[in-house]
Amino acid sequence: MKVGALLDELKLDYEVKGVDFGSDEKEKGVKGENYLAICANGRTPTLIDHKNNDFTVWESGAILQYLVDKYDTEGKYAGKTAEEKATVNQWLFFQVSGHSPVQGNLYFSQVYWKNAFGEDAPETVVKRFNNELHRVLSVYEEQLKKQTEKNGASNAWLALDRPTIADFSAFVWLGILSHFGDKLGVDLAKFPHVAKYIQLAESLDSVKEMRKRVQH
Amino acid sequence: MKVGALLDELKLDYEVKGVDFGSDEKEKGVKGENYLAICANGRTPTLIDHKNNDFTVWESGAILQYLVDKYDTEGKYAGKTAEEKATVNQWLFFQVSGHSPVQGNLYFSQVYWKNAFGEDAPETVVKRFNNELHRVLSVYEEQLKKQTEKNGASNAWLALDRPTIADFSAFVWLGILSHFGDKLGVDLAKFPHVAKYIQLAESLDSVKEMRKRVQH
Repeated sequence: MKVGALLDELKLDYEVKGVDFGSDEKEKGVKGENYLAICANGRTPTLIDHKNNDFTVWESGAILQYLVDKYDTEGKYAGKTAEEKATVNQWLFFQVSGHSPVQGNLYFSQVYWKNAFGEDAPETVVKRFNNELHRVLSVYEEQLKKQTEKNGASNAWLALDRPTIADFSAFVWLGILSHFGDKLGVDLAKFPHVAKYIQLAESLDSVKEMRKRVQH
Repeated sequence: MKVGALLDELKLDYEVKGVDFGSDEKEKGVKGENYLAICANGRTPTLIDHKNNDFTVWESGAILQYLVDKYDTEGKYAGKTAEEKATVNQWLFFQVSGHSPVQGNLYFSQVYWKNAFGEDAPETVVKRFNNELHRVLSVYEEQLKKQTEKNGASNAWLALDRPTIADFSAFVWLGILSHFGDKLGVDLAKFPHVAKYIQLAESLDSVKEMRKRVQH
C-alpha cells in the first residue's frame, strides 16, 4: 500500500502480485522458494522494476527511496535539499522502526498470539505495546499539530508542506487504527490531528487509486 | 555507535553527549525538556551538524543517510548508482525495522521486564522474539555467505564489496550478541559468517576509534 500510493502519485504503472502469509509453499508462500529467490527476508513488499532490467529491491522504505531516486528527480516527494531529505527520512525511519514494529506486535498479540502459542497474549505484552503505541501516536500528534499551524490544515503533512515518502509510509499504518482501533485499545478521538491526517491522505487521488488496486 | 563509526570513517570530528535513559529530568533526561526540544521522539541518537548551521536530525538511519548525502559525495558509503544505493538501503532498513526492534524486545524481556511489570517476562514473549531473532540471523548468515563467495572473506560486507552505511548500522547490533548472546539465548557459533563479520567490522580503524569515544 505504501509503495502503491507512491507509484500512483508518480503515475507509474504497476501490477500487484500477492503472496500467502505464513506459508512456505513453493509457488505462492511468502517463505516459499519462488518468493525467497527475490526477497531473502521472506517479507513483503518487494519491487521488480521492469523499466530497469527487472532490478529488484525489498523493504518498503528502501523501495520508496529507490523510486524517488530514480523517478522523482526534482525531489518533490523526497525533499529538494539535503536538509529537506533528512527531515523526510527522519519521519520515514521513525515510521518503519519506531511505529510499525510496535503496532505490529500489538496487532499480533490480539489476533495471532493464541493461535501461535495456544494461549491468550499475556496482559503485560498488551500493556507494553499499547503504552508504546500511545507514546508514538503522541509524537505524531504533536508534529501534525505543528505542521497544521505552520502550513495550514490542507498541507499538514508529516515532514514538509507537501506529501512525501514519509507520508506514504505513515498514513497506511495510521489508517489501520481507523478500522482496528477498538481491537488495539486505541481511540483516535484522543489524537485529533492524526485522525484529520488520515482523512487528508485518503483524499489524495493517488491513494484512492491505490485503494482500488492493492488489497490486504 | 552507528553514527560515530561513520563519522570516524568520514574523518569528521564529533563530540558525544550522553542523555539519561528512562528519565524525564529537564537537563539530562532522554524524555526531558532539553532533549525533546531537539528530538521530538525522545530517543537516541540525534545529530547536530555544527558545519551546517546546527541542522538537527534524529533516527540513526536518517542521520547516516544525511551524512553520506552531505559529506560522501562520491557515494563510497552510500552507493554510487541508484541500484547500489537501493541495495545498501535495503539492508539498512532491514536492520532498523526488522532486526533491532526484535533484538531490542528480547533484550528488554530479559533485562527490564521484571522491573517494568513486577514479574518475569512470560515464556511466550521470550519465545516469540528469540525465534524471530534466529530467523533474522539466518537471513544475515545467508547473505554474508553469498558475499564471502562473491567478494572474498576480507570484503564480505553486507550490501556491497566495501563497508557502507548498512554495515555501520548492522555490526553494532550484531556485535552486542558477542557479549550478551548467553543472556539472549543466541549462540553465534551457529552463525559463523555473522561471527566473522563482527570481527571484520571491529578491525576497521574507524570502528576502533569510535569504540574509544562512544560509550554505552
